[in-house]
Amino acid sequence: LDFLNLYHTETGRPGLRQRQAEAYRGHLTLSTDELTFGARVAWRNSTRCVGRLPWQTLRVNDLRHVTDHDGVFAHLLAHLRGALNGGRILPTMSVFGPGVRIHNDQLIRYAGYRQPDGSVLGDPQNADLTDHLRHLGWAGGPGTRFDVLPLAIEAGGQVRLFDLPADAAHEVRITHPTCPAVGELGLRWHALPVISNLTLEVAGESFHAAPFNGWYLQTEIAARNLSDEGRYDQLPAVAAALGLDTTSRRSLWVDRALLELNVAVLHSFDQAGVRIADHHAVTRQFRHFEALEARAGRPVQGRWSWLVPPMAPATTPLWDRQYDDREVRPNFTTQLPAWRAARPGVCPFHP
Amino acid sequence: LDFLNLYHTETGRPGLRQRQAEAYRGHLTLSTDELTFGARVAWRNSTRCVGRLPWQTLRVNDLRHVTDHDGVFAHLLAHLRGALNGGRILPTMSVFGPGVRIHNDQLIRYAGYRQPDGSVLGDPQNADLTDHLRHLGWAGGPGTRFDVLPLAIEAGGQVRLFDLPADAAHEVRITHPTCPAVGELGLRWHALPVISNLTLEVAGESFHAAPFNGWYLQTEIAARNLSDEGRYDQLPAVAAALGLDTTSRRSLWVDRALLELNVAVLHSFDQAGVRIADHHAVTRQFRHFEALEARAGRPVQGRWSWLVPPMAPATTPLWDRQYDDREVRPNFTTQLPAWRAARPGVCPFHP
Ligand code: HEM
Ligand code: HEM
Repeated sequence: LDFLNLYHTETGRPGLRQRQAEAYRGHLTLSTDELTFGARVAWRNSTRCVGRLPWQTLRVNDLRHVTDHDGVFAHLLAHLRGALNGGRILPTMSVFGPGVRIHNDQLIRYAGYRQPDGSVLGDPQNADLTDHLRHLGWAGGPGTRFDVLPLAIEAGGQVRLFDLPADAAHEVRITHPTCPAVGELGLRWHALPVISNLTLEVAGESFHAAPFNGWYLQTEIAARNLSDEGRYDQLPAVAAALGLDTTSRRSLWVDRALLELNVAVLHSFDQAGVRIADHHAVTRQFRHFEALEARAGRPVQGRWSWLVPPMAPATTPLWDRQYDDREVRPNFTTQLPAWRAARPGVCPFHP
Repeated sequence: LDFLNLYHTETGRPGLRQRQAEAYRGHLTLSTDELTFGARVAWRNSTRCVGRLPWQTLRVNDLRHVTDHDGVFAHLLAHLRGALNGGRILPTMSVFGPGVRIHNDQLIRYAGYRQPDGSVLGDPQNADLTDHLRHLGWAGGPGTRFDVLPLAIEAGGQVRLFDLPADAAHEVRITHPTCPAVGELGLRWHALPVISNLTLEVAGESFHAAPFNGWYLQTEIAARNLSDEGRYDQLPAVAAALGLDTTSRRSLWVDRALLELNVAVLHSFDQAGVRIADHHAVTRQFRHFEALEARAGRPVQGRWSWLVPPMAPATTPLWDRQYDDREVRPNFTTQLPAWRAARPGVCPFHP
């Protein structure tokens, strides 16, 4: 009911009274227009998202009638291709029907293969997901550091695996504008971040399969995914490629390798014609978003620790600000990974 | 009483019952040993301080009997010289008697002279303090960007100004290990950060004049004081000295200038033999502090947003952690600036 109010007030559409009456009688199915509005406001309310300025441009595919594996997969492929849009990425969400869930946390993820010595080949963050897919019957990929994982789509209580064709998982090879040795590290990353493990909450309804994408912010790839010690841990390799002396961190070699990797990721995406944000522009845009919201008379919620970038944060206009971190609806909520929820009788947090 | 308990429990000294009885009878004057312990624990409890590992090494000058201007000034000079210790800085606190206050927020501060065009020559953060000192009769300094301000010492209700001799305000000229043009910018910073506007709260007593110092963390100077747009705003100048193209921030010239300025500050302090921490070492030491505190059975409070450094924060071991930001006593509390408190009838926040 709050949502109907919001929808009619903000959009100026007539018919609030009638919809309210329907809701009171207990049968409210959101219209496509209402769902689209709800998804956009969920983005606008995402406290951890610094990229909210274009929230009104979100395209929403209303696929609530799609509830079978093949249908879901076909629409996910269409989502990936349509959202990539030849590099001029379009923020997009696909909302599937009841009983559908995607076990992968993002549609495009690299395998993390546990090795006998305890290390992980690929992305360590995805080791649990990789294990899970193996349990579900995945034979494994070619065994590189960047094997794209298959999708585990759940529908009607059954899970099936689907391989992503190469063109659906578009990737960018990472090269450096002036240091070829960085390019020779063989690093790459996929163009599209499509989050598929958050539940969209609108008007009291929960959509568990509502994958959405924006474009990347370069720090996500360069300052976290490729550089975290618990992820690809590539700063030592980048430093070696740059010929840095890594005897002591006090030389700031870590900071220098980090800078050059960020330069490389921006350069590579730009060269490949794939849209990507940088932390200076996106934080300025966020301030603009705040100004627009203030003008519209709406408070902005935010989580400071997520909004400030992991690189030179004090040079961005968010460092000195404070944010109210309350979560308001419509919004996104987290799901328990399928491989945790799937073991009844076992505590999901201490398995 | 809580404090006496803490003191006797942690130090293992006998006599708790007797001190408690004295406290009940209403006349408790802290012993020098108790005051020293209280000051150390106040440091240990400082949620915003990432440099807490050596909290037990704090030297405390018990000067509660000193309440006159000349005495305070003489002891402040002794503090500055003793704490500098030829560059091997010793964390030190001087606790003065009732009625003493130091109007400067740090003992060593650079003037910020308001110019007719609205800009500030020097450190803009100190423009209000500079105005205040002019009101108190200061004639002004030579007019450089780095004029050390006189001290405004309040005692017995009267304020007097004292010039700091050059050797008390030891400074380091900033040069870059490989780029001489950075050195030619004429940047410098003082060796000692001596915070003089926090009240030490121990056992229900408030010590308003208890200046203390540690050594600097290089990001404080290089990533904030010299680079913030509202401070010395030197990143454009550093970029020019490095010959960077500053047309677009997307080239990450800001990040590169920031890196080189941090390299320069560490290099300059190291060359000058003045102790300074770097953000990689100090965050590791903080983790060690946490481990030691855990072993001692004590919880650690912290403010994440203050503990993470403003440079490459995600490469430090604090990024992924969460801290409880409760303030526990003994601790430090903030004071209203003297130039705000000094105008009765005027709201200090909307003068
Ligand atoms: C258009 C470009 C976009 C940019 C540059 C952007 C940027 C970001 C960044 C940098 C994060 C933090 C990621 C992390 O640290 O793990 C984030 C998180 C988030 N964003 Fe955005 N975003 C964009 C689009 C979107 C869209 C289209 C939505 C939803 C419709 C969205 C909703 C969220 C949510 C819910 C989170 C939190 C994710 C989590 O908890 O893991 N964002 N965004
Ligand atoms: C020994 C070397 C020390 C280092 C490297 C260090 C480091 C730091 C840093 C980086 C900050 C944040 C400053 C800012 O962002 O403005 C800070 C704040 C603070 N430190 Fe330390 N510190 C040291 C010694 C001390 C000592 C000796 C004390 C007290 C006895 C202390 C108490 C505090 C307090 C109270 C704050 C908060 C100041 C404020 O609110 O402005 N620190 N410290």
